Order: sequence, then structure tokens, then C-alpha cells
Amino acid sequence: MKKVVKFGGSSLASAEQFRKVGKIILAEDSRRYVVPSAPGKRYTGDTKVTDMLYQCYYAAANGEDFDGQIKQIKARYNEIIGGLNLKLSLDKEFETIAENFKNKAGSDYAASRGEYLNGILMAAFIGYPFVDSAEVIRFNKDGEFDAETTDRLLKEKLKDMPKAVIPGFYGAYEDGKIKTFSRGGSDVTGSIVARAVEADLYENWTDVSGFLVTDPRLIEDPVTIDVITYKELRELSYMGATVLHEDAIFPVRKAGIPINIKNTNRPGDKGTMIVASTCHKPDYTITGIAGKKGFVAINIEKDMMNSEIGFGRKVLEEFEKQGISFEHIPSGIDTMSIVVHQDEFEEKEQQVLAGIQRAVNPDYLEVEGDMALVAVVGRAMKSNRGTAGRIFSALAHANVNVKMIDQGSSEWNIIIGVRNEDFEKAIKAIYDIFVTTQL
Amino acid sequence: MKKVVKFGGSSLASAEQFRKVGKIILAEDSRRYVVPSAPGKRYTGDTKVTDMLYQCYYAAANGEDFDGQIKQIKARYNEIIGGLNLKLSLDKEFETIAENFKNKAGSDYAASRGEYLNGILMAAFIGYPFVDSAEVIRFNKDGEFDAETTDRLLKEKLKDMPKAVIPGFYGAYEDGKIKTFSRGGSDVTGSIVARAVEADLYENWTDVSGFLVTDPRLIEDPVTIDVITYKELRELSYMGATVLHEDAIFPVRKAGIPINIKNTNRPGDKGTMIVASTCHKPDYTITGIAGKKGFVAINIEKDMMNSEIGFGRKVLEEFEKQGISFEHIPSGIDTMSIVVHQDEFEEKEQQVLAGIQRAVNPDYLEVEGDMALVAVVGRAMKSNRGTAGRIFSALAHANVNVKMIDQGSSEWNIIIGVRNEDFEKAIKAIYDIFVTTQL
Repeated sequence: MKKVVKFGGSSLASAEQFRKVGKIILAEDSRRYVVPSAPGKRYTGDTKVTDMLYQCYYAAANGEDFDGQIKQIKARYNEIIGGLNLKLSLDKEFETIAENFKNKAGSDYAASRGEYLNGILMAAFIGYPFVDSAEVIRFNKDGEFDAETTDRLLKEKLKDMPKAVIPGFYGAYEDGKIKTFSRGGSDVTGSIVARAVEADLYENWTDVSGFLVTDPRLIEDPVTIDVITYKELRELSYMGATVLHEDAIFPVRKAGIPINIKNTNRPGDKGTMIVASTCHKPDYTITGIAGKKGFVAINIEKDMMNSEIGFGRKVLEEFEKQGISFEHIPSGIDTMSIVVHQDEFEEKEQQVLAGIQRAVNPDYLEVEGDMALVAVVGRAMKSNRGTAGRIFSALAHANVNVKMIDQGSSEWNIIIGVRNEDFEKAIKAIYDIFVTTQL
Repeated sequence: MKKVVKFGGSSLASAEQFRKVGKIILAEDSRRYVVPSAPGKRYTGDTKVTDMLYQCYYAAANGEDFDGQIKQIKARYNEIIGGLNLKLSLDKEFETIAENFKNKAGSDYAASRGEYLNGILMAAFIGYPFVDSAEVIRFNKDGEFDAETTDRLLKEKLKDMPKAVIPGFYGAYEDGKIKTFSRGGSDVTGSIVARAVEADLYENWTDVSGFLVTDPRLIEDPVTIDVITYKELRELSYMGATVLHEDAIFPVRKAGIPINIKNTNRPGDKGTMIVASTCHKPDYTITGIAGKKGFVAINIEKDMMNSEIGFGRKVLEEFEKQGISFEHIPSGIDTMSIVVHQDEFEEKEQQVLAGIQRAVNPDYLEVEGDMALVAVVGRAMKSNRGTAGRIFSALAHANVNVKMIDQGSSEWNIIIGVRNEDFEKAIKAIYDIFVTTQL
């Protein structure tokens, strides 16, 4: 068993948090490769070390005095070092950083130092060797992540290192210049390392006990998802759920390595397991509910449109011409709606409508804005008959008017269009029927 | 008030039926223009006069003796004439017909004589003047119906005729050669006349008391639709309901003239009123249920397809290249299904699949056949919340697996994909929940 364990900023914000993390890592010998973030907020209103570094760097780059700022950052680390009773000095590292700041090493360099220093601290604390990500995570000349070279470098480096600390968030160009990931941060690093070392599991430790069935801003204290497939996760995340960034999932997904989202503050909780596929029977028929406001439906009616070969293609082409991607194309008989993002559509509205008019000469053409889309996702929906009935009964009961329904043959997601103002009500109704009333 | 009244073959099969028809026409002075079909079957196993005419003509055209056959046809008319105690002889007409049959006047000519003779008979019976449709219904050189000329000819002819009998089913080229309508038969004639005379109502008399909510072969004795809009009718007819042919509706629909489907055998029944739009509150939330078997879904999955501009257009183009029109495009997130007719798709299957593979390089491409589509149609669905809930609960209860759902913003039809084998069960479940249990 070989695990890569990544810890988020809140898990490493203080000595107290470090102690929890240390306990977690050392509790299992399989937790061999550790990817730390930079220290996060210790309390609401606190500043993350990464943000302190940015500010400090801008002062330095503008030729201002940044001595006080760098001391504050150093104090954050020393607070942790002191709290852990470590015999570790970061003086030399801070000297180098100050020097490089003066020489305008770049904001990526500045931002990355939070992870870099935390990696050194972590290595000293748990007694694992430290590997600088600049040596093993590689970007190509265009600034794109070079997966192949990185994989090779990591494999070479870690071949004889059964354990190591590899800081998250950054890598370097071939010439050594530091570059950070633009999206996904330390999560990406953990995922890349997991794939390179062919880990059995990628543990992503954070401050929540996994993903929630729906948005906690809409539903008070929603239940946690125990097991979710990559596909379900991708769907929920596409529809607005805040989960791991696509870039952070891609490397392990490709390698078929499961991810376990765990809570540093409640390590006993099972968290959420993200897997390629599973025969695990979920607690609820639905895995998650997500949604977004701000869609618009362009409704087209034309007698006999179904038998007009090329009709749909011509309509879609008008959207394509204006660079607008469509979300859904629900259709009846002689009617067809194109659902697109309102913000993308608005400025090109008249061009698209005129184009459709010219291209297919519809009997009726209408734009209906302020629509929200709700996605109900769940691999168990396919085998649980009546899911659609429960959803639409619940919505009717909640007086939500269903503007659109789309369920393809995959049978594990249903997309429902409602008015923007019914959005919260719709999500609550669906959550209640599948989760609350089932308890 | 000006009505055009069309009578179907079963309404004119015998003297007894003629008497009912005569009573109906004369009951209202507004029933001014009468469009008769040829005599239909008097009983199960009987032969329609039109079919007798075809057979007779083929014998004549092949140089065989057709004397006996023409006598049988004459006997059918004489039976009616005798039964009605009319002083009418069709001897001269039958001589001309026999002569023209020998001279190979064409099968259209032959087939049209059923209506022609019945028109003369009807005119004599009710005392209205007879107008030969050959004079007023015009086809152009390409054999297409010439709406403009016909409209002018009818207006001229009927200007000073407040009442008339105009036989259905046929017209003529400019040179007088007879041509029949290829689709819609006498219904089309009635509709054309109604438009030309600017009728207030087109009564279409038949042997049923209107359209049924669903197929009587699937549901025993389904209830009748009282009021249906042209749009709803078009949808149900597209989805397989046997109603008036599109061509028969088009002229009156264009002119905004309502159609009333009535039962000659139960003239007191209100029948079904077909209207452009209405504020009439229907008895049931749904107006009708129809459906067809034999569809296939081509399921496509690809990560991030929604943000790939042109994805849908490229997919549809592959179907267009092979001349296949699509029925529906239900989509989830990263999934898209194209629903097409199985018979159209089967022979081009591999070309389409290879084309899609080349065009969009999907992660997953699968064909799922033997799907049936069920259309639930009803203008009242929009204002009745919970319709979708009732449909899908009913289907779940009936153990029908829902393969696809499509409801566009028109909100008055929902298309449901089920397995072919669940088709009848699905229609029954939906009928029962909206009609049976509501009683």
C-alpha cells in the first residue's frame, strides 16, 4: 500500500494543526509521500502566507522597503517551529528569498515560497527527506505543464526514496525558473506525484469531511457523499459545485487512482472516496445536486422541422459562428430550444437570432432568459425506478415550474430548467425528497 | 354561418347511411357545401367502391372483359338510389366510364369515379347543385396541387351558388385529365373548399365521435378529445396517432378555420373541435398520448464537450451527410444522445459512427436500439404543475424504465424514451393516471 497525502493550508496553519497532520502521517506507514500547501488562515480574518508573500514581493519589486513584511512571514513559520519544539532555522532560506525578491524573481517564485518553506518545515517535523518541486515538476517553454518529463523526473528522484515531502503548487522551467500552477494549486501536485509513484490512494486532507450532496449555502448542513465516481464529480463540478479542480483530478483519474477527501480535524471520518467505478451501494439514490443560474433558452418552432435534414445543424452553426457553446438542446415535435449561458449570449443575441431566421426560417422564434439549470446526478438513479417521478412530484409540490427537462440515455443525470427565482426552492425540494425524508 | 361538410365512405355506404347524412345536412341551413367520399364498406369484409373501380379498371386496361365488374359497381349505386326512392339514373355516366376505361383513361380517373358518382347521387338526394371537381380543383403540369388557381376557380364557380355538392378526392390538370390527391383524399378537398368559400367551420363527418386520447388498440375504449389545437394534433399525428393527414389540415389551418370531427351515426355527440388556439379548459391535463417504436439512441460521451464550440454541429453533420434526420438530442453533462429512426439509421450505421469518431473523437460511443418514444401532449400541461411528476411516478409504478426525457420550453409536450417492450405499458400507465383515475 502506497499513499500520497496532500494537506491543505488550513491543515498546516499552526503548530497545533501540524501536530494533527504529523499524527495522521505517522499513523500509517503507507503515507509515504507528503505534499504540503503553504500555511493558511489560523482564524477568520487572518492572512494566508501566500498572500503575505505576494504583497511582500510587490513591495520589493517596486523598490520599497519590505524588511518588515518578510519578518512577519518569518514569524509565521517560527511560530510553528517553536510550537513544535523543532531545532530548525529558516534564516538561510529567508536570506535567499529576500535576495531573489530584490532581483525580481517573479510573482510565481514569490508565491511558491510558502509551500517551499512549509515543505522544509514538514520534512524536519516528520523526519522525511525534502524534495524541491523545482527539480521534479517541469513546465515547457510555453508555460504548459510537461506531464511526460515530470513523470520521468519524479520516478528517477523517488526511485530510492521510499518517503519524501514534496511541496505543492509549483514546479520550474528547464532553466530552473519557478512557475506555479494556474489552477488547482497543491491538489494538482498531489495528483501528479500519486500518478508518478503509482500510488494506491491519493489522500487529500482538508478542513471538511468530504464533498457535500449539495451547496451548504442553500441547504443547512447537507450530508456528505461517501463514494462518488469521477464522472459524477465532473458533472457536479461542471454544474457549479465547488470541488477539486479538473486539473487536479485528471492525472489520477487517468491512472485510475482513487482520491480520498479527508478532514484533518476529524481524521476518523471516512470522508469522500472518488473512484473510477464502484459497486458500492450509495446511501441515497442521488449522489449530488448542483446548479447554476443565468441561462437563456432560444425557442424555435417550425412545422415539420424534424423531417428537415440539416435543421439542427444549421441552427447550431449560428451559435458556433458567434463563438457560443450550447448547454442543452431539448426538443419536442416541431419545437427545439437551445439553452446557452446568458452572459455569453446577450451581446451576440441579435446576430444569432437574425442568423437563425435566415438559416431555417422558423415559424416562431423566442428568447426566454433568467433560467437556472439544476443537475441531479447519481449512478444509482439508473437502477432506482421512479427517480424522475420523485423529482418532478417534489418540484410540483414546491410550486416550481419546470421549464425544461433533459435526460439522456446515460440515465444517471437529469437536467432541469427552472426560473432563476425558483432555483433555491428547486434544490431544496429535491434534497428533501431524496435525503431528508429518507432519514 | 357557412359550413363545409365532408362525409367519409362509411357515412355513405348505404341508403340508410345516406338518410342519416341527408338529415344532418338539412338540419342546418349553414351546411352549404357538401364534399362526399365514395361509398365505403357496408359491413366488415365488404369492398369499398373505390377498390372495385381499381380492379375493374385494371381488367379493362388489360383488355379483359370488365362488364360484370362494372355491373356490380352500378348495383352498389342503384341499391342506394332504390333505397332512397330517388328518380335518378346513372346509366349515361356508367356508359362514359366504361368507354373511358377501354381507352385507358388512367387509374386516377378510375379511382375518382367513386366520388364523382356519389356526388351526383348526393346532389340529387338533397337537391343541391352538383359541381364536378375536375372543373375547380387544379393540378399543375408537375402533378402538384395548384392552390392559387384552385382557389380562384372555386371562388368564381361558387360565387352565385349558395349551396353545392363537390365530390372529394380528385381534381384535374388544365387539359381536363383527372388526378387524385396522393394523400389525405376527400379530407383535402373539404379543406380546400372550406378555405375558398371562407367557411366558418369545416365539419368532417366520419364513423367515430372525434379523436381519441390514445390508440384504441392499446387502451380499451379511450375517451374522446373535445378540443384540440392544430399544434397538438400535428404533434400527436407526427408521433403516430391516426388522425387527419397533414395535407388535409394545411389549407384550413392556414385560413384559421376550425375543423369539427363528427360522427354520422351519433350526430348528437360533440365530436372533436380542432382549433388554432383556445381558452377552452380541457377535461384532462393531457390532450393526447401517442408514440412509435423503432428508434435508436447514439450515445456519445466526451469530457468537456459542453465547452467545445462546434461539438454538436459536427456530430449532427455526420447524420446529415448520410441523409438521416434526428428526432431528439437529449444531453447531460459531457454526454449527448442522438435519437433517430432505427430503419433510417441501420444501413448507414457504420458510416455515421466512423464519421462521429473522426469528427469529435469521443471518449465513448455506443448505439442503443429498440427504443420507443412516447409523446404526452397537452396545452394544459403548462399551467398544471406536477404533470411531469405524475407521468414519471406512473411509469415507475408500472416498472417502466425511462431511457430518455425531453421537454423543451414549450412546456406542452414531454417526450419519453422507453424500451420497445415497455411501450404499451408506458402508454397505459400515463393514460390511467391522467384519465382513468381522474374519473
